[in-house]
Amino acid sequence: MSEADDFLKVAHAAREAAAELAPLPRAAKDAALHAVADALVDRVGEIVEANALDVAAAREGGTTETMIDRLRLNAARVADIAGAVREVADLPDPVGEVVRGNTLPNGLELRQLRVPLGVVGIIYEGRPNVTVDAAALCLKSGNAVLLRGSSSAYHSNTALVRVMQDALKGTEVPAGAVQLVPGTTRESVKHLMRARGLVDVLIPRGGASLINSVVEESTVPVIETGVGNCHVYVDADADLDLAMEILVNAKVQRPSVCNAAETLLVHAAVADAFVPAALARLAQEGVTVHGDERVAAYGEAVVPANEDDFGQEYLSLDIAAAVVDTLEDAVAHIRRYGSAHTDAIVTRSQKAARRFVALVDSAAVAVNASTRFTDGGEFGFGAEIGISTQKLHARGPMGLPELTSTKWVYTGDGHLRTSAGTVIAGS
Amino acid sequence: MSEADDFLKVAHAAREAAAELAPLPRAAKDAALHAVADALVDRVGEIVEANALDVAAAREGGTTETMIDRLRLNAARVADIAGAVREVADLPDPVGEVVRGNTLPNGLELRQLRVPLGVVGIIYEGRPNVTVDAAALCLKSGNAVLLRGSSSAYHSNTALVRVMQDALKGTEVPAGAVQLVPGTTRESVKHLMRARGLVDVLIPRGGASLINSVVEESTVPVIETGVGNCHVYVDADADLDLAMEILVNAKVQRPSVCNAAETLLVHAAVADAFVPAALARLAQEGVTVHGDERVAAYGEAVVPANEDDFGQEYLSLDIAAAVVDTLEDAVAHIRRYGSAHTDAIVTRSQKAARRFVALVDSAAVAVNASTRFTDGGEFGFGAEIGISTQKLHARGPMGLPELTSTKWVYTGDGHLRTSAGTVIAGS
Repeated sequence: MSEADDFLKVAHAAREAAAELAPLPRAAKDAALHAVADALVDRVGEIVEANALDVAAAREGGTTETMIDRLRLNAARVADIAGAVREVADLPDPVGEVVRGNTLPNGLELRQLRVPLGVVGIIYEGRPNVTVDAAALCLKSGNAVLLRGSSSAYHSNTALVRVMQDALKGTEVPAGAVQLVPGTTRESVKHLMRARGLVDVLIPRGGASLINSVVEESTVPVIETGVGNCHVYVDADADLDLAMEILVNAKVQRPSVCNAAETLLVHAAVADAFVPAALARLAQEGVTVHGDERVAAYGEAVVPANEDDFGQEYLSLDIAAAVVDTLEDAVAHIRRYGSAHTDAIVTRSQKAARRFVALVDSAAVAVNASTRFTDGGEFGFGAEIGISTQKLHARGPMGLPELTSTKWVYTGDGHLRTSAGTVIAGS
Repeated sequence: MSEADDFLKVAHAAREAAAELAPLPRAAKDAALHAVADALVDRVGEIVEANALDVAAAREGGTTETMIDRLRLNAARVADIAGAVREVADLPDPVGEVVRGNTLPNGLELRQLRVPLGVVGIIYEGRPNVTVDAAALCLKSGNAVLLRGSSSAYHSNTALVRVMQDALKGTEVPAGAVQLVPGTTRESVKHLMRARGLVDVLIPRGGASLINSVVEESTVPVIETGVGNCHVYVDADADLDLAMEILVNAKVQRPSVCNAAETLLVHAAVADAFVPAALARLAQEGVTVHGDERVAAYGEAVVPANEDDFGQEYLSLDIAAAVVDTLEDAVAHIRRYGSAHTDAIVTRSQKAARRFVALVDSAAVAVNASTRFTDGGEFGFGAEIGISTQKLHARGPMGLPELTSTKWVYTGDGHLRTSAGTVIAGS
C-alpha cells in the first residue's frame, strides 16, 4: 500500500471512532484517560527504549544537546506525562454544555449545545509529550485525533500511540480515536492537510514556517497558533519602576516561549528617563537591544534595528526597541509589525489604558502586567492545546471548550412554519 | 491599473477603514446605518436606473423571468431594503459584550470581550438586496466589508455601494468600510480568495458549486454556508398525522431554500401505515418522490432513486425517500448523504428523540418540528448573514455575534510571572 492509502485508512478509522466517541458520557472518557495513564506508567520500558532510537539518531545527526534534551524520555518524564493525562480527566467535560437556550415565542424549545469537533489533526514539532497531551485533550473533548509529530520523534511517538491504543481497547473509547499519521515524509503532512471532509480542523503547533506552510496549503480549516511578537509599551504616564519590572519579566523570564516580549516601545515623553535605565538593566540581564535611531542615541551597545527586527519573534535574549511620539503611534507600530498575540501597556492613566485596549487588535491585551500571563494554565483553563492568533473560532489560549463546536436542537409539538406564522399540527 | 491593483487598493482601503470603525460606539454605527437607509430612499431613481441596465442585459441574455424578477429593483423594494437597514440599527451591538470574565487567584482581572472580525468578504449570487443587507450587518458588528456580488447585478451593486459610501461620508463611519470588489471576471473573485492578511474571513453565499470552489481555492478562512440536504425521519413511534404535516411543511412550504426537506426516511415498522399515505399526499402537493426499492413498492409514481438522489439538494418539488430498519440506520444514512444542515425526527418516544439528537451531527436537529425553523429570524437573532454548515467558529444561523471575534484583556498592578508564582512589582 502507498503512503496515501495508509493515510486514508488511518483517517477513516479516526472518523469512525469519532462518531462512536462523540456521544460517550464523561465517565467513559475519564475512565479511558486513566487507563491510558496507567498503561504509560506500566509500559515505560518500551517507551524509553523506542525513545532511545530517536535520541541516538538525533545525536548521530549532530542535533544540539538542548534539542536532544527536549526529545529525551525517561521514567520520571513518562510519569509526569501520565500525571498530566489524569489532570485532564479531572477537568469538566465541555461536551453537552448548554451555551444558549430559550423558549421561542411560538413555544419551540431552542438549545445550543457543545458537541465535539469530530476529527482533530495536530501537526507539531519538538517534544514527544505533546503526543500524549494533545491526545488526552482531544479524547476528553470527545474528538478523535490524528497526530503528526516531528520525524525526529517518530519511534517515540509510535510507541506512545501504540500504548495509548492498547489501553483504549479495554475501555468504551474506541482505540481508533488516537492515530499517528503514517510516515515521516513531507508528503505525509500533505495528506493530512488535504483531508477535507475527513479531518474537521488542523492545529499546527510550532514555528512560524510550519504554521505558514499549513495555512497556505491546507484545505482543512486551520487554527493558527503560537507565533508571538509581543510588545511592551511604556506610556507617558507609566510608573517607570513598574514598567522596568514588567519589561524584564516579559523578556527574560522564559525567552523561548510565544508570550515573551520581543519589542519595547517607549513614549517620547519618558524616553530620557526610561530608555537609559532600561538599556542598563537589559544589558545586565544579558539581553541584546536592537534599537531604532532614537533608542540608539541612548547607548553604545544598541544594535541598529531594521524592519526585520521589528517583525521578528526572537525567542532569545534579544529585543527590538523604538521610541514613539504618541500612544496612537505605538498602536500603529503594533498593528504594522505585531503578530496579534499579546501586547501590554504600562500606564497609570485610565484613559490611556482604555484607549490602548480599544485600539490594539490582538488576542490578548495586558494592562500593567507581564505578557507572560497569556496562557491557558494562568487563565484557569486547566490545560491548553495552543494559543490561537487567528480571529475565527478561537482566539488566545485554547482549552477544552475551544476543541468543540455547537449544535442547535429545537423541540416542538408538531411546529410548522407558514407565511402567517407558526401553526401546530393537529391542534 | 490592472484589476489586481484595483483590488488591492480597495482591500487596503477596507483594512484602514476597519481599524477606524472597530472602536466606534453603537450610537455612531446606528447613526450611519440610518444615514444609509435615508440615502437609499432619497436616491432610489439612480438605483432603479442602474438596475434597469442589469435587467435589460439579463433579458437580452435569455435569463428566465423568475431570475429577472429576483434581480429587479423598484421603489417599493428599495424602501424594503432601507427598512431592513433600520431594523439592523435597532439590534443590540455585539461589540464590547463581555463573554467571560473573572478575577484570577493572583488578582489579575481577566475579561473576554467581543470585537469585530475586521474585514469580511462576502461572495454572493442573486438579488442585489444582499449587497445592502450584508453591508448593514457588517457595519453594525464593526466590520468593513468587501462585497463581490453576481456579475449580472454589477450595475445595481455599483449604484448601491456608491449610495452607501456617499451616505457614510457624513457620518463617523469611514466610507471605505463598504467596498465593492472591482470587476466582474472570475479573476476578481480569486483576488478576494487569496487576500490572506487583508481579509479576515470570507462568507460565500450561494449554491454548492460556488461554496465548494471558494473552500478549495481560498487561503482566507472561509465560513461555509447554506447547502442543505435536510432529512425528515419518521420514527417507529411517530404520531403519523404529525409526521405527515411536518413532512409536507418541510418540503412544500418554500422548496427553494436551504432548510427545506430533501429526503424522507421512514422506519420499517411504520412504512406500511405511512408511506402509501405520504406518497398520495406528496403527489397531491405536486411533489415527485425519488424512492429506494422499498419505497417504490408502495406506489407506481415513485421514480427510482440512485445514490445521487440521496446526496442531492433539489431546491424543488422533489424529495428522495427510503425505508430504514432502525433509528441507527437513519442516522447512518444522514451521516453518509447529509449536508449537516438540519435533520428532523418525528417521534413520541423520549428515548428515540434523545438518541437521534445525540447521534446526528448536524448544525441543527429538530424534534417534532419542521426543518424550516432553522433560520436566524425564527431563532430570534433579528437578522442573519447566512447559515453555517461548518463546525469552526459558527454553526447554524449566523447573526451579529457570529460576525465577531473576541479579545482577552487582563489588568494588573505590575503582575509578574515567576517560577514560584505571581509576584507584584514594587510590593
